[in-house]
Order: sequence, then structure tokens, then C-alpha cells
Amino acid sequence: MVQDLSNKNHEVIVVLKRTVIHKIVGLSALVLLLSACSGQNIESSKDVSPDLKDSVQVASAEVIKPHQGIDQDPTPLEVERDGSDVYVRMTSQITDIEIDGGHDYKAWTFNGEAPGPLVTVNEGDTIHFTMENMDPAIPHSMDFHAVHTAPDKGFADVAPNEEGTFVYQASSPGVFMYHCGTEPVLAHIANGMHGTIIVQPNDGYPTDTEVDQEYVIIQNEWYNYNDLDNMTNGEPSQVVFSTKALHEGQPNTNGTVGALIDEPLTAKVGDKVRFYINNIGPNEISSFHVIGTLFDDVYIDGNPANHQKGMQTVGLPASGGAVVEFTVKEAGTYKFVTHQFNHVQKGAVGKLIVTE
Amino acid sequence: MVQDLSNKNHEVIVVLKRTVIHKIVGLSALVLLLSACSGQNIESSKDVSPDLKDSVQVASAEVIKPHQGIDQDPTPLEVERDGSDVYVRMTSQITDIEIDGGHDYKAWTFNGEAPGPLVTVNEGDTIHFTMENMDPAIPHSMDFHAVHTAPDKGFADVAPNEEGTFVYQASSPGVFMYHCGTEPVLAHIANGMHGTIIVQPNDGYPTDTEVDQEYVIIQNEWYNYNDLDNMTNGEPSQVVFSTKALHEGQPNTNGTVGALIDEPLTAKVGDKVRFYINNIGPNEISSFHVIGTLFDDVYIDGNPANHQKGMQTVGLPASGGAVVEFTVKEAGTYKFVTHQFNHVQKGAVGKLIVTE
Amino acid sequence: MVQDLSNKNHEVIVVLKRTVIHKIVGLSALVLLLSACSGQNIESSKDVSPDLKDSVQVASAEVIKPHQGIDQDPTPLEVERDGSDVYVRMTSQITDIEIDGGHDYKAWTFNGEAPGPLVTVNEGDTIHFTMENMDPAIPHSMDFHAVHTAPDKGFADVAPNEEGTFVYQASSPGVFMYHCGTEPVLAHIANGMHGTIIVQPNDGYPTDTEVDQEYVIIQNEWYNYNDLDNMTNGEPSQVVFSTKALHEGQPNTNGTVGALIDEPLTAKVGDKVRFYINNIGPNEISSFHVIGTLFDDVYIDGNPANHQKGMQTVGLPASGGAVVEFTVKEAGTYKFVTHQFNHVQKGAVGKLIVTE
Repeated sequence: MVQDLSNKNHEVIVVLKRTVIHKIVGLSALVLLLSACSGQNIESSKDVSPDLKDSVQVASAEVIKPHQGIDQDPTPLEVERDGSDVYVRMTSQITDIEIDGGHDYKAWTFNGEAPGPLVTVNEGDTIHFTMENMDPAIPHSMDFHAVHTAPDKGFADVAPNEEGTFVYQASSPGVFMYHCGTEPVLAHIANGMHGTIIVQPNDGYPTDTEVDQEYVIIQNEWYNYNDLDNMTNGEPSQVVFSTKALHEGQPNTNGTVGALIDEPLTAKVGDKVRFYINNIGPNEISSFHVIGTLFDDVYIDGNPANHQKGMQTVGLPASGGAVVEFTVKEAGTYKFVTHQFNHVQKGAVGKLIVTE
Repeated sequence: MVQDLSNKNHEVIVVLKRTVIHKIVGLSALVLLLSACSGQNIESSKDVSPDLKDSVQVASAEVIKPHQGIDQDPTPLEVERDGSDVYVRMTSQITDIEIDGGHDYKAWTFNGEAPGPLVTVNEGDTIHFTMENMDPAIPHSMDFHAVHTAPDKGFADVAPNEEGTFVYQASSPGVFMYHCGTEPVLAHIANGMHGTIIVQPNDGYPTDTEVDQEYVIIQNEWYNYNDLDNMTNGEPSQVVFSTKALHEGQPNTNGTVGALIDEPLTAKVGDKVRFYINNIGPNEISSFHVIGTLFDDVYIDGNPANHQKGMQTVGLPASGGAVVEFTVKEAGTYKFVTHQFNHVQKGAVGKLIVTE
Repeated sequence: MVQDLSNKNHEVIVVLKRTVIHKIVGLSALVLLLSACSGQNIESSKDVSPDLKDSVQVASAEVIKPHQGIDQDPTPLEVERDGSDVYVRMTSQITDIEIDGGHDYKAWTFNGEAPGPLVTVNEGDTIHFTMENMDPAIPHSMDFHAVHTAPDKGFADVAPNEEGTFVYQASSPGVFMYHCGTEPVLAHIANGMHGTIIVQPNDGYPTDTEVDQEYVIIQNEWYNYNDLDNMTNGEPSQVVFSTKALHEGQPNTNGTVGALIDEPLTAKVGDKVRFYINNIGPNEISSFHVIGTLFDDVYIDGNPANHQKGMQTVGLPASGGAVVEFTVKEAGTYKFVTHQFNHVQKGAVGKLIVTE
């Protein structure tokens, strides 16, 4: 791969060898990938030399026969509320994710997005979840980390072309991962079936009144296409951040949950900004950090009881979440990263633009 | 390696290449390995093609000459109590661990188990520890993370065929790793010399009265046999959970500590379940998670002062411990994993069966 | 590589293959590397067989042309205080770091040290930071994790042979990483541009009056010389600890900050010892542990509000810091490690000598 690592006015200073990295620039119309930053951007695969391209294609598995030629349009998330009963309807489906340079990843997805649409409910809500499995070949399922249920029942497989409904309660507030729990789980997550559910605390966070801006940031990594060996033993080819729409932290039942954010994250000077962050892996830890600031308040896994102060970086285990809050005191561009900088090199950088 | 990854009624959907994974199914009669779950099980090495088998044998070191032909029977842990003085007697010994398909790992062990027997004491106890080194060739030692001692004295090497006695105090409550501390430590741990010591808090945990079931869960990874290069730079070949008997969290001085649990972990609907968990590495971090529930109460490193609430996943550094508690609300099967799913693929999954 | 892994009186017991590890024994006159311990020491590269040496040199990039022949003398850190205004002057410069066996790493450094000199300020101080970029070829910059600033301004690049001054406030106490933030950041950090800044809390730590000894411990890993591919996808060749001088935890404005500690860390029996620890990566997590004791008090990221008790091991994300305190009850030698023992194998071990 050819990567332009020269700085503005001097010669090339580092050497990059033998690595082929595809950058995913748009998972779907509903997802904003935040890896686009300054001259550090990883170049598109159109720059890859022919023989390296071949080696990647050899390393990845072929699209399985029942999925060949399938590219299902993204499906809007459906959420309806009736008191504390929330009716959520999602799909599992096969949808092409555009790769920079014209390459596609035929992702296994929820609703045609990867990460899937953001789901938000209130602490104590009962979730009536229906999944329509539009995949013609493979069963899928839903494992919400936010709920209590017997997994062999509440997270049971839904057969191809069928649908299943499950009921459980979200009794604890926080920022939780969801994912397909069908075996082999690693393949289902790494192929794209993951997302975030936020359970809003009934009593709120102690810092709620101070917060001016809220965003959801999700970290995940990608591997060679549908290649379980690479997923199990290899290094990720990309580590990326995505974001999802959120309306003042409230459950959003009018169809705009998961809607497009097609511009950079923004804030005003003096704002206290809250990020709901979730590291959905499937394999890697995150060391989440915002450059130019530090987190005044941190709630581990998003639970108001787990309050920490003044942290430069929050360690997130695989699937772990957090609420982090910080104040931006000057106008400018604040990048956020996992401070495991090999992963920044693979795309894990986003930006927040602060104006007067 | 041939791995049957087909789901019930459809074709093979993922590709696994060039990886040879041995599964350890029974480390010894005293250890229950919890990696046995559903169709996701990694197949036994009897399915490995001949040339791949060879490549594994080339990658691993031979059994050193003094250990060849040695297979010492497991030795029961001896624990005697006299007031707050606890007399613990253990061995270091060379014992074959049965590998699936007839392969053995000639493990370096405490008492013929890997992980070694569970040791439980009370906060403030003085431990009088005696190790009999039954290994004919290599010195071994004991490093209890629970105690205060000058390591060059309290954790000193015991020569082959000799025994040593050491005295120290366990003054802080928690869930602690123990391991052989003889150089090179990585080889001694990775070859099997590791285990868990629980120091029960004198004032208990705030949630003691709510707990109905208690289990001890230990995570460790395995590498190519006695291959320090692979242990240092390679990926683990297996990541597994083990469990050890525990009687209501109390110190157990009648010889049954570490006794066989030969059935799955169990609980009743409505039970609050406590896991004492310990990630003994030697190299990898754990992201411990129980599917279908979340942890109402977490005590980091098992200290009652480090109380967190409502966590989906607990990050454990290498050697880190925790007490996690959760309530099972429905009958069914709850698997637990490290949510670093490449490690689930290598065996890190156990199960808790909940009945009415 | 030939590694003498025999113990005192018996034969070689483990096998090490195909790995070439250079040990860095003295980064500069101002840095003490703490990897020197007992018979476990990794041997110097003079023991490396010729063909393996070649393979390493092939894997590493050449020194870029403008840096060839340059070896700038270490520059003392300059710190001046005027009330709560602290004037800090540092350099970015190219300085040879002596590698065991006569090999040099032509490091990109702050002030000719890697890690760079320790900086200490008080909570609420305004830092007036000036960087003189002595590198003839590459822009560099400074990213203090301790401060609030718009990164594109406060952490802006300083062109070769120029200097830049930046002003920002350190409003939150703790143990923070600093590093060059110029793209590609991974290369700048991994080539040596990293260090620690401590912001002393105005109200102190609750345990201040108990502490008898204070030390600063920094963990970082090294990769093949200036090889961005190896930095991104490879395993570190070394993981090491360094220490920096600290005078009773107070800001030090008389030029001795960062001064040489050329003897092992020491304490007296009964001392409560405080370590300010910082894992500056660039890629790896740390599981920090002191053998023979446990941490009575831990302050995550060094903030007094994040107080934990009784921990055996502290997990540090990449860039994360902590204050850890422990009492040494017996005379002897206490090693400290990251309990990810593959990294101990690569050098991550230091020692504290406790005398009567």
C-alpha cells in the first residue's frame, strides 16, 4: 500500500511496509464514519498495488453463495412507546457497505447499518423487541446487554425469512452494547451485527443540568471479509468510530433515532459536552481520549453510581461503555482517539469542531 | 484444522484457515473446564490433518529430559487452622493434563491442578505456607498476591526434592492471584503454575445477605508447550475458564477446598449469584461478561471498598480479580465469556444453568 | 538469539526461538532504565547470531537523511515560576540512545531523553510553554494531557529550527502523559517523544501525611527503528520502565526536575511508598503490580477523587496514569512489573530495595 506520510514541507519520514488497509468511508447512508482527519488519513485502496490487492483477496473469504447478489436497502428503525412499554422493531439483513475506492463489504447488519441504529429507552422500560430476519441463509438473534433474560429464550435465533418477538426489562441505566448472539458470535459481530442501546437513568446524572451538547460515539474494528481465522488470530484491518443521532438524551419514538449525522460534531466555546461512548470490539480494548481536554466527569458503563473525576483517558473493555463529559474552552478542532495509537493509524480518530 | 461451523440447517458460513487449536478438556480430576458449550465447540485435535499436526509439534518445545516419563498424581491441598494461624501445604509437581484427542500437556502445577487448588483465608490471618517441590529438575516458588513479604525471602525458590516454609500475613480482603515466581516467570505461569487465593473480608460485603449462590471462576490462556518464544510473542492457543469449589465463601479447612465440581454451575430463578473471578493471564486482559444479565454489584479486586454498580462487563488486567453479583430472573442457560470474542473462539465460555 | 535461561544449578528448561530482542540499557544519562533484574535479564544483542541481526536490520527503516550524523546533546529542562505562572522551556531534538552491545537508537526526543524530563506543576497553574525545535527536518509539537486548549492552536506544530510558545491552564490534578502530537503521531511517540507531567492537587491526597517515599515510574514500549508498519501491526521489541527525579512531590523550579536517579529505588522497612505511574504506550495496556505487596491506596489518573483500596494490580489504558501507595514491611528486594508477563520478558521489570 502506498501511504502519503510526508509532512507539508519535508521529505517522507517513516516507512510503511507490507500492510494493506482498506478504509471504510461510508457504512451506509445512516452512519457517519469519523476517521477523516487531516493529512494522516489512510489512503484509499485504489492506491494499493495490484499484487497487494490480490493478497488481500486471497486472505478474505468469498461471499457465501446465498448472499451473492444480495444488497438489501437500509430499513428505518421502528420504535413505539405506550407508557413504559416500548415496542422496537429491527431487521437483520445483508447490506453492502461502501469501501473507499469502490470496494464493498457485504455486511451482516441490523437495519442495513453497521453499527446498527441507536436504541434509547428509559430505566425500567419493558422492551417488546421484534426482529425480522431478512437474511435468506443464516439465523440471527439479538443480545441486548441492557436487559435481564434467559439467553436461550430471550436471545434465541430467528430463522431466515422469519421473525421473532421477545420481551424483557431494561432495569439498569447505562450505555450498553447490543449484538447478534448467534454462533459463531465472533463472525456475526465482526461482520457488522453490533450497536448501542442507551438506558436513560430515571434520576438522571448529577451533571445533567451542566451539559450543553450530547453525542454518541461507537468504536469497532474490522477484519478480513468473513474470515474467522483472521478475526480470531489477526490484527484488525480498521479501527473506526461512528456516531448516531441523539435528541437531548431522551428516548426518541418518532423515527429519527439513528438518523443521519452528516456533518462533524460541533459545540460552542464554553459548552460542556457529553459523549456516550461504547467500545463494541469485537476483540480490542479502547483507551478513549479527547485531545486538548480532559474528562471532568466519567460514569463507567454509563451508570450514575460509577462516578469518576478528572480523567485523561477512559479504558473500555470489549463491549464496555461510559458517559464522559468535558468542557471546551477555546474555539478550534478537538480530535478524539483511542490512545492505542496503532489503532489511530487504522482509522480510530474523529473530530469535534468548536466555534465561538 | 477442520472445524464444524455449520449451523443446524444451513451451509457453512465462515472460513477458518491455517489454525491449529487444541482444546483442553480436563486439566485433571480436580478441575472442571467450562469451555464446553453448544455447537460452537472447537473440535478435537483428532480432526487435525497430519501435516498441521506436525507443524504444531515443531512449534512446541519437547518435554525436558528430567520430566520425560514423569506424571505425578494430584496431591490434595492441606489446610489446617489454629485461631488466625492457617497452615497451608502445597506441592509443585509435574502432572499430565489430558488434552482432547489423547494429547497431554505435561504441566508444571501446584498439587497436580492447573489452575491450582483454591485457597481461602480470612482477612488478618497469618499464613504458614509450606511447599514441597516434587519436581526433580527445576526450582519453584510461591507468590501469593494476597500477602506482604519481601519477595526474595517469602517467595524464595525451593530446590528440587526439597521443601520450604514461609510465613506472612493476609491483611487485605479480596480475590488474588497466586503463581510460581521462579525465573522465567512467564514460563512457570504459562506451563500451569497459577491459581487463586480468596481473602474473606472481616466485615463482609455490603451485599452478603442477598447472595444465594457463590462460584469461583478463573480465566487463563495456554500457549505452545514450554515454548517461551510463543508465550512471549504469539497468540494464545486456548483461553479457558475453570472453576473451584467454595463453601459459602468461608475458609475451608477440612480438605475439600479445591474439590471437584463435576457438573455445570447452577442456580434457581430469583437467585442472586456471586462470582469470584480472577484473570490469571499470563498475558491477556479479560472483559468478563455474563450473557442475559448485568452485574448489580461489582467489587474491584474483591475489596468491599471498591464498589461499582450496574456494569455489563468488568475489565480485568492480567492477574486482576473481582467479585461480581447478578440476579437471574428466568430459567434457562446463561453463558459467561470474556467479551473479547477472539478468546471465546479459543474456548473462553462457560455456563450457568438456572432452574425454577 | 541466545538467551541464558538456565537457573543456577540445572539445565536449560525453556526454549526461545526466532526472536531478536535488543535491550535498551541507558536511554541517556538522565534516565534510569529499570529492567535490570537477576538472571532473567535479556542478553545483549552482541549475542545475536549474524543472520538474525541482519533480519532485524532489514525490518527497521534507515535513519532518514537529515538525521544522519546528528546526535544532539541532552538539554536541561528549564522551569521558572512566578506566582501561579510557570514558564517551561523544552526542546525537541535528535539524540542517540545507547543500546546494549553498542547499538544506538537515534531517538526523536524531548530534551534528549526518552521518556522526556518530568514536569511538575500545581493545580490551577498557568503554563507558558516554549518549545525550541532543534530537529533540522521535521516539525514537532507538544500535547500535554493535563491542559485545556484547542489542539490545532495550543498543540500546533513548530517548524524545524524554530520555536513556539503556548499558554494554557492545568486545572485538574493528576498524573498525565505528554507527547508530540505531530502526524503521524504513532511514529513520533514510538520514536521517543513522550513523557509525564504531574499536576499536584491543591488539597493534596488524603494519604499525603502517611507517605515516606515518592517515585515516578513510566512504562513505554519500543519497536523497530522508525518502522511505522511494525509500530502499527507488530509486537513491541522492548517494554521498559523508566523513572524520573521528584522532590517530595513539589513543583521543582530550580533545574533539578528530571535529574539523574542513578541508583535503584530505595525505601526503609515500614515506609509507605508512593509511585506516580504513567503508561505512555504508545499501543499497549499495562497491568501494574509490585511483587510482595499490594496497593493500600490507588488514585486513578492521579485524581484524589478516584480513590480505590486494596488492589493487587492497577490496569492502565494507553496514556493512563495513577498514584499507587503501599507499605513495605520487611527488608528485601521488591520487583515491580506489568503482570502481562510477555512484557516482563521484554524488559518491563524494575526493583525497589528496602533496608532496615
